[in-house]
Amino acid sequence: MAEIRGVSIVAGKPAQGAGEPFFGHDPIKGKALSQPYLAATDAEVEAACASAWDAFERMQSIDSATRAAALDGIADRLAGLGKDLVEVMNAETGLSTTRVLAERERAVGVLRMFAEVVRDGSWVRACIEPGDRSRRPNPKPDLRRMIVPLGPIAMFGASNFPIAYSTAGGDTASALAAGCPVIVKGHPLHPGTGELVAWAVTEAIEAAGLPAGAFSFLHAGGDRERTIGQQLVQDERVRAVGFTGSLGGGTAIERLARDRAMPIPVFAEMGSVNPVFVLPHALEKKGADIAERLASSVANAMGQMCTCPGLIFIIRSGHADEFERSLAGSFEKSEPGYMLAKRLQLSFVQGLDRLRAVDGVEVRAGAMGTATESGPASVSPVLLRTSGERYLSDHLLSEEVFGPSTVLVVCQDKAELMACAQTIPGSLSGSIFAGSYDGAMVGPLQAIVSQRVGRVVYNGVPTGVEVNAAMVHGGPFPATTAPNSTAQGIMAMERWCRPVCYQNAPAELLPEALQDSNPLMIHRAVAGVWTSGSANDIAAKTG
Amino acid sequence: MAEIRGVSIVAGKPAQGAGEPFFGHDPIKGKALSQPYLAATDAEVEAACASAWDAFERMQSIDSATRAAALDGIADRLAGLGKDLVEVMNAETGLSTTRVLAERERAVGVLRMFAEVVRDGSWVRACIEPGDRSRRPNPKPDLRRMIVPLGPIAMFGASNFPIAYSTAGGDTASALAAGCPVIVKGHPLHPGTGELVAWAVTEAIEAAGLPAGAFSFLHAGGDRERTIGQQLVQDERVRAVGFTGSLGGGTAIERLARDRAMPIPVFAEMGSVNPVFVLPHALEKKGADIAERLASSVANAMGQMCTCPGLIFIIRSGHADEFERSLAGSFEKSEPGYMLAKRLQLSFVQGLDRLRAVDGVEVRAGAMGTATESGPASVSPVLLRTSGERYLSDHLLSEEVFGPSTVLVVCQDKAELMACAQTIPGSLSGSIFAGSYDGAMVGPLQAIVSQRVGRVVYNGVPTGVEVNAAMVHGGPFPATTAPNSTAQGIMAMERWCRPVCYQNAPAELLPEALQDSNPLMIHRAVAGVWTSGSANDIAAKTG
Repeated sequence: MAEIRGVSIVAGKPAQGAGEPFFGHDPIKGKALSQPYLAATDAEVEAACASAWDAFERMQSIDSATRAAALDGIADRLAGLGKDLVEVMNAETGLSTTRVLAERERAVGVLRMFAEVVRDGSWVRACIEPGDRSRRPNPKPDLRRMIVPLGPIAMFGASNFPIAYSTAGGDTASALAAGCPVIVKGHPLHPGTGELVAWAVTEAIEAAGLPAGAFSFLHAGGDRERTIGQQLVQDERVRAVGFTGSLGGGTAIERLARDRAMPIPVFAEMGSVNPVFVLPHALEKKGADIAERLASSVANAMGQMCTCPGLIFIIRSGHADEFERSLAGSFEKSEPGYMLAKRLQLSFVQGLDRLRAVDGVEVRAGAMGTATESGPASVSPVLLRTSGERYLSDHLLSEEVFGPSTVLVVCQDKAELMACAQTIPGSLSGSIFAGSYDGAMVGPLQAIVSQRVGRVVYNGVPTGVEVNAAMVHGGPFPATTAPNSTAQGIMAMERWCRPVCYQNAPAELLPEALQDSNPLMIHRAVAGVWTSGSANDIAAKTG
Repeated sequence: MAEIRGVSIVAGKPAQGAGEPFFGHDPIKGKALSQPYLAATDAEVEAACASAWDAFERMQSIDSATRAAALDGIADRLAGLGKDLVEVMNAETGLSTTRVLAERERAVGVLRMFAEVVRDGSWVRACIEPGDRSRRPNPKPDLRRMIVPLGPIAMFGASNFPIAYSTAGGDTASALAAGCPVIVKGHPLHPGTGELVAWAVTEAIEAAGLPAGAFSFLHAGGDRERTIGQQLVQDERVRAVGFTGSLGGGTAIERLARDRAMPIPVFAEMGSVNPVFVLPHALEKKGADIAERLASSVANAMGQMCTCPGLIFIIRSGHADEFERSLAGSFEKSEPGYMLAKRLQLSFVQGLDRLRAVDGVEVRAGAMGTATESGPASVSPVLLRTSGERYLSDHLLSEEVFGPSTVLVVCQDKAELMACAQTIPGSLSGSIFAGSYDGAMVGPLQAIVSQRVGRVVYNGVPTGVEVNAAMVHGGPFPATTAPNSTAQGIMAMERWCRPVCYQNAPAELLPEALQDSNPLMIHRAVAGVWTSGSANDIAAKTG
């Protein structure tokens, strides 16, 4: 078990750091923690990039079993981070022990899933089109394609998931799985959690025998935070960026990445309102139950989930009035809590003020509260209410407010609800609660919603993202900067890859994944036929 | 057979156009052609976008057989464009009849390939992870993922492939195949070819029963060219951009797309130097033959192929001297010809002047020529020569010069050649000519080259891109703006798609591709098992 030293880790070794130390903050006690952290120096960022490039080149000849072992090793070590992790993460984020352990378990699950995918090997999307020397007028070349890693990745973790979307979260796991070294810019809201997890990753990488440069962790706080991020994104050896955070942060980083001499892709997951549609028959049959589940989804981690439901659409009726009362009641009963940081609390309160200032928007439940510049980051869940007409006329109402609030939009009729659906911004998820008599409405609504979100959820809240191959955690802008990608599920690995084709390559120079005999026994498309066997069998059948 | 009317086609109907007409130019005769063309008006661009969005929504419920029929119909009609196409394309581009017919055949092949892929249906990457209601503490949701079309696509074709990378080329074919409507900005260097092909597409779409808005073709010449492009890229209903052309054009369009309120992805294929490495034993055994093939690859279409070999690396030796003489001889013997347009000729001559001005670069064969502001766009293939040392010290030498020239880089030794390989910019292709005794060098060289190109070619020239599932036509910047994509092969369709996941969706609301019974009989991953059968069979086996 590594202790917290307060310095970065560059390619397996503790760094020195320099300058004024920065500190974590306890959002519940509202004061700074005692452990000092030193931000990485320019030279340390440079060293991390140089080691990452060197590791990338060396990793090309390291087999995938080693990468899988490293991922499993990280999972093992993460699972072994018990009391220390809980203590430091509790203190830095105010997140409960239950939540810390659940998030740890989730990250462990993601790491093991990618280890399994790497061991299976079929993720490289191998495709073989055998040549034909006798074809006229030109011989047909032998073409073999697979996807290969892009190079070192700069990773910017999220404040709201200090384990699962940060240092060793899905982005890091999927990039390492793909064969890309990772340089993490540590999040200053959880420096201790980040460092503890980073040592777990570092040890696992060493134990598995990957080059130490495959992973570095750079503390980035105080006035160095932005500089370190910029240096990373601009380093020519960095070949893609992963980011989870605010719309402002994600778009700024993408601009930086696009303005490089060699622009690189940025996979940023940003804001999402996660609209929820409760259709009339569902409202009638299960209104109270749905209201309770939605209130609890909003209150979950004090609304600091990327999939927090920010908009709920219903159609005016007697049952709708009941639903509204149930929802308001559930919100009133929600316990107050703490946001991850003072600045998030301030920004939440400002966001609510902006919404409340809109004509026709009322506070239906929860204390709006005021926030002082210092002290605990306490908040309560807030339910706002407006009409469909008002929603359609004010763009502001479809913007995300990060924190435990939701806007209930009461529509005049079906047509107005459909019109509202047409205006929802790109989101990670969209939920539809439908009863058995809602059939006529649900098809057209699904068509509209599925065009605007990465995941359509039926009769369920959007929070609680299941970790498996089929999950999609992405969506059109502003949910992400890359609509054709997902941050979860097997396809998440493909963000860090690009296709390469070998034309008429000598057998001995082909990567194992593309060799005739299929030594990795992976699933491939050979001459248009899917097979886990040898290419010769297919050639014999089709030739 | 449609006649050329000189106006745009908006959703199946000829438009009006307005303003001063523009004209095609005959690059051989060096003068304007007589047919006038009217650029699309702002209202016509707007109408094309509106119809495309409407078509997109309607296409969601149109089966894939209809899309496949439309693609086959385009192929049929393209194949039927004989004498008229040859005549107009000859006149507008100076490309030979043989070349026009070969390019037509190639485009037909691409269209039929995508029709086949659409009919097969497995390209949607369906993945099913069945739920488990009995799981504790939380039930496991049923998750089903596939990829779906992004929306209307704005397409900017290339000047150098008026059929195969333009109006009905690979970008248009792959987007229509994916279910995305396409709006083509016509290229002003081949307005007649564009319009003829556009009518073929329009008729096929109508015949197959796709909505007319699935395709529009906008004439864009004179002072309207840029405005029309900008309006298209900025229209909120356009959801991605395809571009083939210059580095300047591609990066400008990407900037525009990123600066939208809702940024969208741009898939731009731009410049590529396509480096060629001829290793010592290959040089010794087949030097003269390789020299001839390379010279002919450069002279092909007067160097106006995206895969024209722009850099050839060899190591100093007696055989190298012979190779150089053979190469120079072949260049001297190359027939002069014409570029596609006056401005390309001028830019080629300027590019050569820049290269020649570099200290240590000499013209080894071919007449450098000068270009006047008017008259025929005639050029001759030019061979330049420099040393590895010089190449390494001047960044300019690794920039693409569009036209029939190549730089022979003679390296001191293996180490210098490897150092040169390390500096090649992102390219569509990289070729390695290796003899049986080059074994020790070729592995490390492949490792370097494959990191920088989309296709590694052994013992062959880069021109002549085979059309099939395994082809990759892409590469890191500056070859493209999207390293994780390809403009050819089946994966080209994925550029116009994004993943969507359905969570606990009622069976009757699932897209056919994700239904248990697998009515489309497509290849899917069900609970981690690849199958073309029903999901129930797998559930029974694994459950």
